[in-house]
Amino acid sequence: MKARVHVTLKTGVLDPQGKAIGNALHRLGFPEVGDVRQGKFIELELAETDADRAKSRLDEMCRKLLANTVIENYRIELVS
Amino acid sequence: MKARVHVTLKTGVLDPQGKAIGNALHRLGFPEVGDVRQGKFIELELAETDADRAKSRLDEMCRKLLANTVIENYRIELVS
Repeated sequence: MKARVHVTLKTGVLDPQGKAIGNALHRLGFPEVGDVRQGKFIELELAETDADRAKSRLDEMCRKLLANTVIENYRIELVS
Repeated sequence: MKARVHVTLKTGVLDPQGKAIGNALHRLGFPEVGDVRQGKFIELELAETDADRAKSRLDEMCRKLLANTVIENYRIELVS
């Protein structure tokens, strides 16, 4: 089974990388760009066939390693 | 208008970060995890209302800054 995890900063948490990207895009001639937020996007292959079990294990992986739940949100997507 | 850009390594390009995540997950007790690939996920606010124009400008932003098109693929998504 293939899964995708999106890890993004919580609203209100300062995103220096996003700010830097936004400033760089303005300098490159893209004034229409407003707020920019950058996050992580992780694709995993799982030797698991049960969707519910995969989701609960992925949730555990996010809380233990993939996301810093103090400042980050995560979203789990099962692809196939 | 809100847009999302997913930037991922091209197939065949070594992903040391993904490897490190996979190894760490195994050590944490998740043996079912196979291949892991990590990419970037960028959310942008655009002062643009025309979807086609937004897409072509985002494409330009990706080629100029957001993605290294030699080793990375990018996927553009208009959210609203």
